[in-house]
Amino acid sequence: MGESAVTAAVLVIGDEVLSGRTPDSNTHYIANYLGQIGVDLREARVVPDVESEIVAAVNALRGRYTYVFTTGGIGPTHDDITADAIARAFGVDIDEDPRALAMLRERFAEADLNPARRRMARIPKGAALVPNAVSKAPGFWIGNVIVMAGVPSVMHAMLDTVGPQLQTGRRVLVESVAAGAIPEGAYAAGLETIVRACDAVSIGSYPSFTSEGVRNQIVLRSRDATALAQAVAQVRLLIDELASHAGQR
Amino acid sequence: MGESAVTAAVLVIGDEVLSGRTPDSNTHYIANYLGQIGVDLREARVVPDVESEIVAAVNALRGRYTYVFTTGGIGPTHDDITADAIARAFGVDIDEDPRALAMLRERFAEADLNPARRRMARIPKGAALVPNAVSKAPGFWIGNVIVMAGVPSVMHAMLDTVGPQLQTGRRVLVESVAAGAIPEGAYAAGLETIVRACDAVSIGSYPSFTSEGVRNQIVLRSRDATALAQAVAQVRLLIDELASHAGQR
Repeated sequence: MGESAVTAAVLVIGDEVLSGRTPDSNTHYIANYLGQIGVDLREARVVPDVESEIVAAVNALRGRYTYVFTTGGIGPTHDDITADAIARAFGVDIDEDPRALAMLRERFAEADLNPARRRMARIPKGAALVPNAVSKAPGFWIGNVIVMAGVPSVMHAMLDTVGPQLQTGRRVLVESVAAGAIPEGAYAAGLETIVRACDAVSIGSYPSFTSEGVRNQIVLRSRDATALAQAVAQVRLLIDELASHAGQR
Repeated sequence: MGESAVTAAVLVIGDEVLSGRTPDSNTHYIANYLGQIGVDLREARVVPDVESEIVAAVNALRGRYTYVFTTGGIGPTHDDITADAIARAFGVDIDEDPRALAMLRERFAEADLNPARRRMARIPKGAALVPNAVSKAPGFWIGNVIVMAGVPSVMHAMLDTVGPQLQTGRRVLVESVAAGAIPEGAYAAGLETIVRACDAVSIGSYPSFTSEGVRNQIVLRSRDATALAQAVAQVRLLIDELASHAGQR
């Protein structure tokens, strides 16, 4: 599919996802968002609320990808340890940040700004803040790591703030060809021939089992519109031929 | 929460998840399934259909956890490279397996058993097969790695087959206390005191923003029923006190 200069990983931080309590919807949302702006999501991980696990994952991912997006663990309770873990991963100090405290004061009266809530103003040294339009407590951006809330509505707002500041690549164009009930095993060889001839196009075959039987889909992705159109035409031809053979039987 | 001897990781293999085409529902399903039988899911990863990425992830995870469950990439098309990647990760040969071929023959007439479909009988040396009640092409189990289909209905059937053969631990008991509209910042300090006193209980606080405003939940997890009941009672007391204060204002 050709190389993109701009890549990303998602790191979901949260016991609740691993325990099965909460299905993670953030990875899918971020994957779509990044796709729209030409950033390739290359990996995603879910780790528990354990500082050493977060540190290890952040350091593994930030060395490999242009950006790392984390979600979760930036609230006021004892299990919100993301900011401290990120500071440790970067080897920087962490302390109450006057800018973050000012944001919290937009929501909380001074009497309500107790130590737990002030914890949400702890930001690693050198980080830029990511404002939170929904509930004020900010995320932050340090090095190539962008730290966001786990609550989907808050995360979406943070991503909208960060998005326009990201380096972006050429957007990947996507086309689908419905293979209907033609089995994957019937078109696999023909498809592989097309795949080998079309370096600039990434092609996937995705079965799904519906109440009406198998419904397969072939998905083609490329940054090169001409190469994509040619590959789509070849796949359509392959599928149409197989469909007409099947009809003749 | 005390240590469990039995741990697991999930490895989702598939470009379609990273591109945003397909939301991954398999991790959540496996997380719940394992929770029910006392296996702790400790990590999840999503990697693309790239052999070196799959090999690196499998080797990282299989050394750390009792089990690794992979999903995806075992069909008949060119993008189905999981079996070869697993063989490479374990440093074993891979070839057409007569037992797997016999399973495929339950579904396919000899004339339809083309090279693409026969690819689904390629199994790493030394692996046990995991039968596929839905569409016959088997998954497999090698070392501590269990390789399953990506199509959810097929994966579920495979997990049902594998489940009874797994080592299991004591099941984690879970209780929730609804904190309603009481803000996390109001109960964080009290909750932390309880957390520090209850070593055997893992406690998480989960906000959600609904159309009626914030609705928070405190989730308590433990293998020790007595410790769990004590912690739940303390959390209920804390929340009830805060609720009555709020009512008096």
